[in-house]
Amino acid sequence: MRILVSNDDGIYSPGLAALAEVASEFGSVRVVAPDGERSSTGHAITASRPLSYRRTQIGGFEAFRVNGTPADCVALGAHLWEKVDLVLSGLNLGLNLGNGIWHSGTLAAAKQAALLGLRGIALSAPATAEPDFAPFKPWMRRVIEALLPHNDLCLTNVNFPRNPRGLVWTRVSVRRYDGQIVPTTDPLGRPLYWFSVTPIEGAEDGTDRWAVEQQWVSVTPLRLDLTDEQLLARLQASRPLQEGIATAVSPRRSSPEAAEAVKREEAETPVADPQVR
Amino acid sequence: MRILVSNDDGIYSPGLAALAEVASEFGSVRVVAPDGERSSTGHAITASRPLSYRRTQIGGFEAFRVNGTPADCVALGAHLWEKVDLVLSGLNLGLNLGNGIWHSGTLAAAKQAALLGLRGIALSAPATAEPDFAPFKPWMRRVIEALLPHNDLCLTNVNFPRNPRGLVWTRVSVRRYDGQIVPTTDPLGRPLYWFSVTPIEGAEDGTDRWAVEQQWVSVTPLRLDLTDEQLLARLQASRPLQEGIATAVSPRRSSPEAAEAVKREEAETPVADPQVR
Amino acid sequence: MRILVSNDDGIYSPGLAALAEVASEFGSVRVVAPDGERSSTGHAITASRPLSYRRTQIGGFEAFRVNGTPADCVALGAHLWEKVDLVLSGLNLGLNLGNGIWHSGTLAAAKQAALLGLRGIALSAPATAEPDFAPFKPWMRRVIEALLPHNDLCLTNVNFPRNPRGLVWTRVSVRRYDGQIVPTTDPLGRPLYWFSVTPIEGAEDGTDRWAVEQQWVSVTPLRLDLTDEQLLARLQASRPLQEGIATAVSPRRSSPEAAEAVKREEAETPVADPQVR
Amino acid sequence: MRILVSNDDGIYSPGLAALAEVASEFGSVRVVAPDGERSSTGHAITASRPLSYRRTQIGGFEAFRVNGTPADCVALGAHLWEKVDLVLSGLNLGLNLGNGIWHSGTLAAAKQAALLGLRGIALSAPATAEPDFAPFKPWMRRVIEALLPHNDLCLTNVNFPRNPRGLVWTRVSVRRYDGQIVPTTDPLGRPLYWFSVTPIEGAEDGTDRWAVEQQWVSVTPLRLDLTDEQLLARLQASRPLQEGIATAVSPRRSSPEAAEAVKREEAETPVADPQVR
Repeated sequence: MRILVSNDDGIYSPGLAALAEVASEFGSVRVVAPDGERSSTGHAITASRPLSYRRTQIGGFEAFRVNGTPADCVALGAHLWEKVDLVLSGLNLGLNLGNGIWHSGTLAAAKQAALLGLRGIALSAPATAEPDFAPFKPWMRRVIEALLPHNDLCLTNVNFPRNPRGLVWTRVSVRRYDGQIVPTTDPLGRPLYWFSVTPIEGAEDGTDRWAVEQQWVSVTPLRLDLTDEQLLARLQASRPLQEGIATAVSPRRSSPEAAEAVKREEAETPVADPQVR
Repeated sequence: MRILVSNDDGIYSPGLAALAEVASEFGSVRVVAPDGERSSTGHAITASRPLSYRRTQIGGFEAFRVNGTPADCVALGAHLWEKVDLVLSGLNLGLNLGNGIWHSGTLAAAKQAALLGLRGIALSAPATAEPDFAPFKPWMRRVIEALLPHNDLCLTNVNFPRNPRGLVWTRVSVRRYDGQIVPTTDPLGRPLYWFSVTPIEGAEDGTDRWAVEQQWVSVTPLRLDLTDEQLLARLQASRPLQEGIATAVSPRRSSPEAAEAVKREEAETPVADPQVR
Repeated sequence: MRILVSNDDGIYSPGLAALAEVASEFGSVRVVAPDGERSSTGHAITASRPLSYRRTQIGGFEAFRVNGTPADCVALGAHLWEKVDLVLSGLNLGLNLGNGIWHSGTLAAAKQAALLGLRGIALSAPATAEPDFAPFKPWMRRVIEALLPHNDLCLTNVNFPRNPRGLVWTRVSVRRYDGQIVPTTDPLGRPLYWFSVTPIEGAEDGTDRWAVEQQWVSVTPLRLDLTDEQLLARLQASRPLQEGIATAVSPRRSSPEAAEAVKREEAETPVADPQVR
Repeated sequence: MRILVSNDDGIYSPGLAALAEVASEFGSVRVVAPDGERSSTGHAITASRPLSYRRTQIGGFEAFRVNGTPADCVALGAHLWEKVDLVLSGLNLGLNLGNGIWHSGTLAAAKQAALLGLRGIALSAPATAEPDFAPFKPWMRRVIEALLPHNDLCLTNVNFPRNPRGLVWTRVSVRRYDGQIVPTTDPLGRPLYWFSVTPIEGAEDGTDRWAVEQQWVSVTPLRLDLTDEQLLARLQASRPLQEGIATAVSPRRSSPEAAEAVKREEAETPVADPQVR
């Protein structure tokens, strides 16, 4: 098995080295990770400039540091190293729970794997755990052992509490959101604003947040389809738009020409205008 | 109604001005948008430095340009302007369809609204439509009119074809992914890699991509919960972990102390170490 | 005369529009400026990725916004628009005096012009002058009229006081430096550090700082050669290294092969290593 | 002696570790360097956001990686570690010769030291020298030994050829500039532009470029004052502006009030406008 290891804390994070070491028990390991910290970058990709990498060594493993986002690293790594089977992202310094996972670069690396048809697992530890990751190694091993047999598990988000009691399947805690704006000033008194976080009351049982609060390793199966199917079905039934006509008059599959035309419309506008002088 | 207008093409994009003008027919408008282009930034937020803004005017509307991501703009705008009811993001120069929406900054602004408990609508037009947005104005108006009455529609992704025939509810086209790595070189011959896109075959009917290919305005209701509930239920039934014990021995709701402890573990590691000298 | 106008406050700064308007009285004007604020970027250039631009209009003039530094804009502008005669940079919101000019992006645009063999003039106004630049227009005109006839003036740094009394030639005030580090914290109490400025006592007469303090327009001729010739002569006389042998055994001009070899050594190390798989 | 070691290739560059090791023979060493590559950033400083650092170890030395420019690192390092005597910057992977030194982050770290009243030495090696820096260690030692006794040498730029024959004092080669714009395209055919370099013909003897071409270690004393004194004197004599009146009616030193007023005008415009709602 070929295992690509990435993260969003940057290639020199001790959490990545610990994860790579555990991963090497399951297959051949290659590290492809950002050349610096890329926390909270979400699923950003770098489309406005080309990427590059430099070779290095991380904990004895062949490693590539990339001037891009976690998602860039997985796309570039899968391109350079054919037939990747599994992407592991982490071990992140900081939990990725509830609605906060939208901003997570750690999870984005695993999502990028799933987009590419590979399997992706994101693993996160308490922020204050650094620098001793030894206690998490047996738990990372147990998680990988538990997940590998499930071929239908394309995308999984794992969070470790400080003192794990065991593993539990969980769902995402979506009831509350903990981001908030906090005002401050610079040395000359000019107003500035931090995008910070605020404590959230205890979550409901069965969720990722609740599991970690109760010292269980939270293992959450995620999906890539953002469609709200239930709402969609309800809207189509009660407040239809023109789906009826559309289905009647349009082919069930578009022609290659129509697909190609839309593809061109997805791209950004031309970066520049050549006829300048 | 108070309507916040944002985008990811930057505050001076003509698409934003066109959207703000249409929005002003439905309520009081304020523009809060990035000070430069932030395409493909996904749901990134700026957590490592404070944000700032400067006042300006966009098409006669009070406007604030922010040195941050689309999601930052919505969070900061909602903080500075209390009681925002609706966030409109766009009109983007370039379609946001299928799996590509994971990378979309346009959609991230609308998602950030939904995370904050507000309603968010992302609107995208063909990339080559610039600079004449007049033909899209009546269609933006029709979309807003159609969506406003549905209070349960928290997050909607809208894409306009070049010559719209009408509106249809759609689901996300998730079968294929169009991102790919394309090698190139710099002037000194050193290898570089573009994260580019490749054409995708025609999508199945009922999807956002199919709708736009057939010249219908695609209106997709989205959700914020990434949990794969069906897979979760299957896994819990067929391959349980320790949910049984966990539920038996743990309270259904965590104590405030446990919640607070986990909250601390979500934060990044300390940015710096104070005891230096 | 072909005049390229740039700045470091970004292409939408009202100071740039005011300068372009005055410049148009002296020749044909084109604006090439950063797409966002690039203050304090010094003489940075963008070597790790390619640049791009988009066309726009600034105050009726043909304009190009570039995703790069002020120095990038001048190099790209001179490439795209052949036979540029003069580069004007500003009107900057904030004075550029004394040792602070090392960090100035406004001056860097003018320096880049001088490096390319063109003439460059940097113009800066008090930071609190925005948004009414009308009072500075006659003074900008007077400065350009005064400098144009001097063909040997390749690089000039101009600073306007709030209420100018006239123009004076000055030297740079180098006795003191006003940068300093100011500690602060983020919302979670983690230490951070601002690179800020502190007031400097009154400068000696004849300097740029003194002139502006006394409400004179400061006009400083600058050079591109950083060599400390006096110290060099003293060191070669009193503490020679091996200049004697070097001059005796080495040709006065290197061979093309030697020059080419050194050129290769100036480049960065290869961005990436091609033989990866 | 307290020696601060920095660079612009990033804290994990093997050139920095080699320089720190040699530096430790002369005094107590601390490393404060950028957390990633910051090549070609010139004398940029970070004024729009606060800086932070994290502790690490580089080659056994206490080290701090900073999310800022080389100049930021020196300012922050001098703030955190009182009584720094000497700043060494490098060993850079790539020569810094002639007019190219304007863009050099390596030299900017040494210049920042000089601005702060400390001594600064920038050291650069051929770009293709990596990863074996052992041959340069005795030469770095010789340079530091040769420069330390000269207290009037505040700022020195040193470049090593591949096979050094000895040390020579040099001046900067300013006759030619090697930057140029090279057009390219992205995968969708849109035009882009590289800021690249072009070979320069052999330089005149006595210059930094000539020395390295002839395999001598180039040691160039630099100054911080950019004033062109000769031209200034000529202009004041032949084409005076209003220096006469200015000197007659203005005090030789400004009042503290005038100095403070100008200081305020140097600052950027307010980052944001507080009275928003």
